[in-house]
This record gives sequence, structure tokens and C-alpha cells, in this order.
Amino acid sequence: MPSISLKGRSVPASPIRKLVPFAEEAARKGIRVYRLNIGQPDIPTPETALNAVRNIRHKVLEYSHSAGNESYRLKLAEFYRNIGINVSHSDILITTGGSEAILFALNSCTDPGDEIITPEPFYANYSGFATSAGVKIVTVTSHIGNDFALPPISEIEKKITARTKGILICSPNNPTGYLYSKEEISLLGDIVKKHNIYLFSDEAYRELCYDGTEHFSPMKLRGIEDHVILIDSVSKRYSECGIRIGALVSRNKEVISTALKFAQARLSPPGLGQIAAEASIDTPAEYFTEISREYTARRNYMVDALNKIPGVYCPRPKGAFYTVVRLPVDDADRFAQWILEKFEYKNQTVMVAPASGFYSTPGLGRNEARIAYVLKIEDLKNAIETLSEALKVYPGATH
Amino acid sequence: MPSISLKGRSVPASPIRKLVPFAEEAARKGIRVYRLNIGQPDIPTPETALNAVRNIRHKVLEYSHSAGNESYRLKLAEFYRNIGINVSHSDILITTGGSEAILFALNSCTDPGDEIITPEPFYANYSGFATSAGVKIVTVTSHIGNDFALPPISEIEKKITARTKGILICSPNNPTGYLYSKEEISLLGDIVKKHNIYLFSDEAYRELCYDGTEHFSPMKLRGIEDHVILIDSVSKRYSECGIRIGALVSRNKEVISTALKFAQARLSPPGLGQIAAEASIDTPAEYFTEISREYTARRNYMVDALNKIPGVYCPRPKGAFYTVVRLPVDDADRFAQWILEKFEYKNQTVMVAPASGFYSTPGLGRNEARIAYVLKIEDLKNAIETLSEALKVYPGATH
Repeated sequence: MPSISLKGRSVPASPIRKLVPFAEEAARKGIRVYRLNIGQPDIPTPETALNAVRNIRHKVLEYSHSAGNESYRLKLAEFYRNIGINVSHSDILITTGGSEAILFALNSCTDPGDEIITPEPFYANYSGFATSAGVKIVTVTSHIGNDFALPPISEIEKKITARTKGILICSPNNPTGYLYSKEEISLLGDIVKKHNIYLFSDEAYRELCYDGTEHFSPMKLRGIEDHVILIDSVSKRYSECGIRIGALVSRNKEVISTALKFAQARLSPPGLGQIAAEASIDTPAEYFTEISREYTARRNYMVDALNKIPGVYCPRPKGAFYTVVRLPVDDADRFAQWILEKFEYKNQTVMVAPASGFYSTPGLGRNEARIAYVLKIEDLKNAIETLSEALKVYPGATH
Repeated sequence: MPSISLKGRSVPASPIRKLVPFAEEAARKGIRVYRLNIGQPDIPTPETALNAVRNIRHKVLEYSHSAGNESYRLKLAEFYRNIGINVSHSDILITTGGSEAILFALNSCTDPGDEIITPEPFYANYSGFATSAGVKIVTVTSHIGNDFALPPISEIEKKITARTKGILICSPNNPTGYLYSKEEISLLGDIVKKHNIYLFSDEAYRELCYDGTEHFSPMKLRGIEDHVILIDSVSKRYSECGIRIGALVSRNKEVISTALKFAQARLSPPGLGQIAAEASIDTPAEYFTEISREYTARRNYMVDALNKIPGVYCPRPKGAFYTVVRLPVDDADRFAQWILEKFEYKNQTVMVAPASGFYSTPGLGRNEARIAYVLKIEDLKNAIETLSEALKVYPGATH
């Protein structure tokens, strides 16, 4: 049999993947599994998006422009300007999800062997894209004791080498929910300028900020326009993950023209998805008010309930719909499997994402798990009650 | 300004790209430009596909399975079995167009520095994917004098080195329209087995075969099941290029499970496109009879008309909707620009794709162009008449 690539072998499987058979087995036994492990919101997609798709008048579903439909880019540029990000449609490449934006950014800015610095824990799929591009992810550790704030700039600077091409941040953060402050973003802006490297800003969760906080994008910083690359996605903003529409945005013309060559090779981003995404820009403001209200209530319920469980510590994140929680267990990977395989409470169990998969430093996150609050409060209530009961009897409990 | 990747710099821009401003300028002057350069068919998308999209009942446009919806994979496996390709749904990964299938195949089977052999002229976008994966494309030349048949196997074998991981073919071929015979495919099967390498089979144009010929896929060969990787796309089959749905198909479980890791990193293929593609499988047989009749008529008209022009030679390809034609010109790149910039006949001009962009050997294809017969016969008539008149007065004509 011909050999598989070393590259392919080294892509880590998704941290949740190996739990799937246990969840399926539990479901087969008639146990209700509350899935706190996923990033698929249950919020309805805006009607304006669904109707745009239902009303297509096309005779031929043709290729779009490789950079995305011009009408969509014009409207999206206006969307950005309305939130204080001053760009034109020629600064935008529509991509196949935020995923492709990350891949194009790495392909355009890095060569095999180069390094990208990111705070850990970090979105596990960055590893897959880095492997695909041949790039090494170098991490600086953020800590649960500090609610996952940006690590000190001096620690980040220590990691910069001749091969470092950029710093990658995600704010609000997946997996921690942490929202970087304007001050933290400004500090990052200073060091990317000083070291003449890129700042990749993954803002897939930009619209999900709570407690009256405001998102601050490095795209708003002056004097580093050529350094900042925005990675965006409509997936969470409009609860339309499945249409696979994102964007790569930069005022660095060379980055956009280089990324466009990769975009031309794959011909065009999804056409039907672009129709939905363009229409989504007209989503009424109340949609977001309602989502924010709902997620804030869920978060508050969940954080309070988790912190009442002995030995559990859960920060109260300002954005996204995740939190990384410390559990009183020997090993969260083992616990996550055990609770699916060996435990049930009132015929219910829970699926969580062990945090080890979000760290690159071996041993970190062993007693942490990412929990998503993408379920209704009544379901969250049952899920956390189940978790609490499980911790009372888990053989590897440390509390 | 931070540096762009060497990788990004080295992706060749699309061979047609630099002609676009000249075509736009001609259109601005009120000249009708017949676009013979593109692969966008004018055939309507099947109603069954359009209606499936118009009738979506979704409340949330969710992620699909990373390998694609199971219902679609089951139906697609049946589609393949009906055409003699014996696979199950677990041998199939749904991809974002054939483009992503190529990228996943390269990422799963090759490492940076490895080599893939392909006959030239070849689909120019292979270069972009190879660059992205860090792989070198090594070519064996097929010749217009031989109507672009497979080069002798001995020539292919001479190019195999310790870094060769596979042979990539496209049949029916883009850009030449050549359809590989069962004998040619069998010879390729023998050498991939002998050298223990992969055979990547791009079959995006499988359903477009003329003159009663039948497509023969290497997926039908016995004894090399682990070697063959099928790259497929619904783009041309159902004239739905814009939905970006393709597939990577292989009975090599290790390839599929490795490719799935790259697929998981990008979460899922386009959801709305999958709905259209799944419904497309129910397209009635008459749709294809009609398309075949139409393309055969166009091809016959075009080939005959081109061969009547002094100094022009045009093979009569058996598949796809392209042909590479020899023109009596000094330089087809120069001619293609000149005809847009300096020429018009009855207020019309023509856009063709210079063939040099489809060769990797410098100097080859300089008096050749790819012509697509994706226009109605009356438009083709005007286009070829214009081309003929242009060749009479082009300053660099060699006839």
C-alpha cells in the first residue's frame, strides 16, 4: 500500500472525536446525552437569510468571483465601517468559512518551517491548518487562575524568533470565552509593529459580547494597517455555520493579492451560502439583542451553577459561548469518557470537551474541560445537575 | 511591511487573469466579447436541484458531518455503483468542490518536496494546490500532433524518482478534451502498482463523453484498490459549479481516515450545496442525453470551422467541452491580448485562454490556445468568424 504523508499522520484528531462512539452507545441505551461539547448554536438562522435562499431565481448556479460576489463584498465593507473597521470591498476576500480564511492567511504569510505564536488554550483546528501549511504553532500559556487573560507581553516577546511570522489571537476566545481588552490589543499591536510581523485576528465570535462590553478589533489600531489580518465568519453571528462563509480582510494589498491567487485556484466560495450571508446583513438589531439576552442568561445560570459544585472553578467569560472550567478530577479525558460510558443520572448524561486538546504544552489542561452553553437553560440545569452527581461518584475525583 | 510567503509569491497567476482588464476595456467600448476562455457552462442546472434549495424547511443552517451528510454519501455511493464503481458511503468524503478533493489528496498522500507526475498540458490550478501542499509537479508532454493521447508509459516511468508519490490524470481532460482509453488507464494501473505509488483520477468531466465512447475509471481496475484516489465534482455534471461540491473517493481506508482529519479541521462542506447535489442525483436521464447532443453539435461545428481556417489545427476531442487548438501565430499570449485590445470585427471580439499557462515546460504551447465550446452555436459561429478575420490581419501571423 502506498504511504500516507507524515503531515497527514501528524494532524491531531479532534479532541472530541474519540468520545463520539461512547456518546452514541449511551444514546443507543436510551440515555439522554446533553452535548456541552459543541459549537453548534441552537439559535434560529435569521428569516431574511433563509428566505433569500428560498427565493433564488437562478437558472444556472454559476461560479462567483474568486474573491466573492462584488455585491456581497460592498455590503460587507459597509457592515465593517458601521462597526468602526474602515475597509473597502477590495480589502475583502470571501472565503469558505473562517477555516479557509485561516488557511489562506497562513499560505500567504508563512513558509514551511515558519512559526506562529498563539496563547493556549487555543482553538484545536488551528493545528490542522498549521500542519497543512507546514507551520509550527508556538504557544504562550494563559491561565485559568487569571481567567485566561492575555499572558504578559514579555512572555510573548520571549517566544519571537527569526522564523516567527505572526501572532494569532481569537477574541472573544474559543475555547475560553475571554474577551481581550483594548489595552491588551494595543500591546499586541505595538509588538507586531516592533518585530515587523503579522497580527492575525480571529473574530468569529465578535457579535457575542456580554455585560455591556465592547469588542475591540486590532483593525481599529492606527499605524499597523499592513500588519493586521482579520479572519471572520458568519457562522456564529447569524447561526448559519453550515453555509461555510467567512472572510479574510486586510488593508495590506500584497496579502490580499497573494491570498487571491490561492482563492483563484479553488475557483470560488460557496454560491448559495453567499446569497444567505449577503441577506443576513439585513438582520434586524433585535435579533442580536435577543441572542445576547439569551446567552447572558445561560452563561450566568451555568457559571453560578458550576461554581456551586465543590472543587469546580468556572470563570465568567465576557464573550462567545464557551468557558473552560476546572474540575476536581484526576484526568478530564478519562472523566469525559467515564461519564458517557459508566454513568447516568435520571437516565441522563453529559458530553464535555476535555481541555487537553486545546493546549500544546503536554500535561496542561488535564483537569479542565471546555463547556459550551448552547443549550436552553432547562437543559443546562439538567446537564449540570448530572455533572454534579457524577463528580460525587467518579472514582478519580480529587475533591 | 511584513514579508509575503515565498510560497504565495510562487503561485502562478491564472493564465487568463492578465487578459481580464483588456476584455473589460473592450466591453466598455461597446464591443461584444465572446468568451471562449471559460469553463462555466451555459446549460441550466437541473430543476430538481434548484427546487430542493427553494424548498428548504430548515430553522438553523447547521454544520453537516465533516465527511458530508450521510444521506448524500449513501445516495452518491449508489450513483457510483450504477456506473460500475463499486464503493460504499464510507469510501466517500464530500468536499468543497473538486478543488478541495485535490488539496486533501495531496495533503494526505504527500509531504513537502514530494513529486506528482502529470501529463502536460494540465489544468493550471493543479499548480496552486501543489504549491499549497509544497509538492512539485513533474510533467510528461502530450502532443497536439498526437491529439494529446497519453505519452508513452516508458516516458512516464523515466520520471519516477524516490520522491514520486503518484500520477495525476484528468479524463476527459481539461484543457485538451482527450478521453483516456481503457488500455491507457490499465497501463497506468500497472505502473502505479509496480512502483507502489498513487493514481489520482480527476473525473470532473466524466459525464461529458461523446460519439458513443464510454468513460473508463481506474476505480474499475482490480488489484490496485489501495492505489486509486478518485477526485470528483458535481460542477460540470449538473452545471452547478457555484455550489462547490465535490468528493474524494477511495477504497484505501488509511487515505480516507487521513483526509478526514483535514476535513474535520475545516468542519464541514457547504450545507446548501449538499442539498442541491443530493437532489441532483435524481436528474432524469434525458437531461444528459440533451446535454450530450448539444455539446456534440457544438464541438462538431467548432472543430470543423476551426480546421477550415488556414494554418489552424484543432483535434476532435471525445470529452469535456474544451479543445487545445494550434494557431498560426508567433505567440498565443500576445495574440490573445491583441485580439481584445486592438481588434474588432463587426463590433465583436473573442477571448481565448493561451495554452502556455497549461504547460510547465517553458516554451511549449506558445502557438496553442484552449477554447471552450460553452456558447450556443450561433455565438460560436460569430466567435470563430471573428477569430478567422483576426488571423488574417494579426501582425504576428505565421501563415
